[in-house]
Amino acid sequence: MTQFSERILKTPASFIREILKVIQKDDIISFAGGLPNPVSFPKEALKQSMERVIDQYGDEVFQYSSTEGYQPLREWVAKRYRDEYQMDVQAEDILITTGSQQALDLMGKVLINPGDALAIEEPGYLGAIQAFTMFEPDFCPVPLLDDGLDLDKLELILEKRNVKLLYTVPNFQNPTGLTYSVEKRKQMCELLNRYSAYLIEDDPYGQLKFEGEVFPYISSFGLKKSVVFGTISKIITPGMRLGWICTKDRELMSHLVTAKQAADLHSNIFAQYAVYDYLMNHELNEHIDHIKDLYKKQSDAMLQAMKEFFPDSVSYTMPKGGMFVWGSLPEGESSLKLFDRAMEEKVAFVPGNPFYVDDTKAVPTFRLNYTNSEPEVIREGIRRLGKLMEIY
Amino acid sequence: MTQFSERILKTPASFIREILKVIQKDDIISFAGGLPNPVSFPKEALKQSMERVIDQYGDEVFQYSSTEGYQPLREWVAKRYRDEYQMDVQAEDILITTGSQQALDLMGKVLINPGDALAIEEPGYLGAIQAFTMFEPDFCPVPLLDDGLDLDKLELILEKRNVKLLYTVPNFQNPTGLTYSVEKRKQMCELLNRYSAYLIEDDPYGQLKFEGEVFPYISSFGLKKSVVFGTISKIITPGMRLGWICTKDRELMSHLVTAKQAADLHSNIFAQYAVYDYLMNHELNEHIDHIKDLYKKQSDAMLQAMKEFFPDSVSYTMPKGGMFVWGSLPEGESSLKLFDRAMEEKVAFVPGNPFYVDDTKAVPTFRLNYTNSEPEVIREGIRRLGKLMEIY
Repeated sequence: MTQFSERILKTPASFIREILKVIQKDDIISFAGGLPNPVSFPKEALKQSMERVIDQYGDEVFQYSSTEGYQPLREWVAKRYRDEYQMDVQAEDILITTGSQQALDLMGKVLINPGDALAIEEPGYLGAIQAFTMFEPDFCPVPLLDDGLDLDKLELILEKRNVKLLYTVPNFQNPTGLTYSVEKRKQMCELLNRYSAYLIEDDPYGQLKFEGEVFPYISSFGLKKSVVFGTISKIITPGMRLGWICTKDRELMSHLVTAKQAADLHSNIFAQYAVYDYLMNHELNEHIDHIKDLYKKQSDAMLQAMKEFFPDSVSYTMPKGGMFVWGSLPEGESSLKLFDRAMEEKVAFVPGNPFYVDDTKAVPTFRLNYTNSEPEVIREGIRRLGKLMEIY
Repeated sequence: MTQFSERILKTPASFIREILKVIQKDDIISFAGGLPNPVSFPKEALKQSMERVIDQYGDEVFQYSSTEGYQPLREWVAKRYRDEYQMDVQAEDILITTGSQQALDLMGKVLINPGDALAIEEPGYLGAIQAFTMFEPDFCPVPLLDDGLDLDKLELILEKRNVKLLYTVPNFQNPTGLTYSVEKRKQMCELLNRYSAYLIEDDPYGQLKFEGEVFPYISSFGLKKSVVFGTISKIITPGMRLGWICTKDRELMSHLVTAKQAADLHSNIFAQYAVYDYLMNHELNEHIDHIKDLYKKQSDAMLQAMKEFFPDSVSYTMPKGGMFVWGSLPEGESSLKLFDRAMEEKVAFVPGNPFYVDDTKAVPTFRLNYTNSEPEVIREGIRRLGKLMEIY
């Protein structure tokens, strides 16, 4: 008899992690990971900020600190929601987390009893599936359409089940790159206000919109049970593991703080001081513009190459921001088989499987990341994939 | 009806955290927290290491990284177990965690089903009680004697229950400051090898032994199901949140890695590089000697003042390392009442309650921390407490 918990036996090791192990070799063109381009790391500026906070604050950047996070950083995050999204957010509505991966863990911890209904986009972010699986929910996948969730299907599920949580990535979704339309956001807000589920809007990519204004959050149309996740991972550095949860629900926040304390006491306080100092001394939006310009070029390179090399029977999304393109082979084909052949040609991507709650079925879909390769490398990788796709 | 999970509704907010909020004022003498003296933070050296790793490694210190941790740091930790404890530990036996608080969360996650028996020292570390409560175990407290656990009581519990985990802090225990004798360690090893429970030896303070050689781990006598926790929090910096789990159990390790990945992907990689660079360029044992000298002076100041000012009816431990003294008022008295009176005299400590699995009973015990006040301040605080104790 196993000694291990039921929750861990149910939780899959990450498929992507296993893939990343295989493709560590230098000569493989990888569209598999979700790594930001290092151009997004303001290295020298962070180095100066680190020196400055040590000189300026001394011991307190190395000491134990408060679970909620560094107060000035919480205030900065709140102000950004006010300035960029016209949302009524204060510092007390912000809990600093160890990356937004931890935010997933904490939300699962404080809300999910085994068997509770948890609605999630299909396909959906595999890190969320993994984190929530740990709390043994009954996953209710909701199909993702081009303009956001299928609201008819969502309503059926909300009617039938006491859904605790609805997890979404409304901007440049992982894995599809799709974005919810403003109209759909309004409709979702109206629908959800008739039920008791908390909506999570996990938003690592929203700031990376290639053109035009950022979209309003679903919750900004007046949603009562709202939780928004944010992170510096895609705009400053992922290695520091800093994200946050934003919610005005005081009871939920109080439970999240207790869960966070039990999980790791607090997030790296030195990193919080350093990042705050960086934000005070640099214009974040200019830095983000720089990242967007680069990602737009990389995305264009991928989409142009796909147009040139992929057969018409292979469809794909055309993201307007973020880091991913989502493709689909003809119905009935298996992207996992394509993956095996692609590896022989030294090109890697992620087959669609781990983005479905039931990851055992063969699926024709696959995810391509464009942020971590140069345009000419992207073109060559897509060319090789296109060659393999000639059979479809 | 509440929407929140059963686990979070059972989990207490930290008592100490609530106390720390009350005593933020400058004029309060606090023996309440468990903060290391800032002398243990090698600030300038860490600053140099940070500059160096940014210059030397560039982007990779800011990028996503592996769940297991920075390989050279894992190797350093393994080598330290080999060199200082003659234990057969390799890098693959080490998982870097976000402080050892996360190690508690991960162990609970991968082992504990609701209702599973979990044995723990009584009194025991409140952070462990809080972290494990989240997984709804049936706590089986085992009395802590002057030389370690009461093995007769432990054996009764092991006989009766299928204990999944036994949690201990064998060196300068939190809250008591007590240390398991070498003889008791051998006996525990023999006893535990007859059962299937994993032993956790959580060891934040073991290196802070004022005099003589460090004690061997219980597991070093040949324990099969062994997990040792370590941390840099008390010897370098707690603010960076870096600890580790050491186990040679491959199946357990594989589950821990999956749980860690779901929890926060990986620990701050920049901090791992910086701390490793610090370790490569400085003699850690010399730095630890410096901390020990200081803590010994602070401990002496507290014990001398207690001898002078406390009535004979109040007993206390005489720690030979670590950060805490554990006191006891006469049987039947409540340390919580003393706490209220002490706050009026502007002295804070932690009443014993949160260190018991059932924290609702009045207890005569209390914890004093000596590492975060100057000797003359310690003396004044103990003098005030002694005055309040004249009624016993």
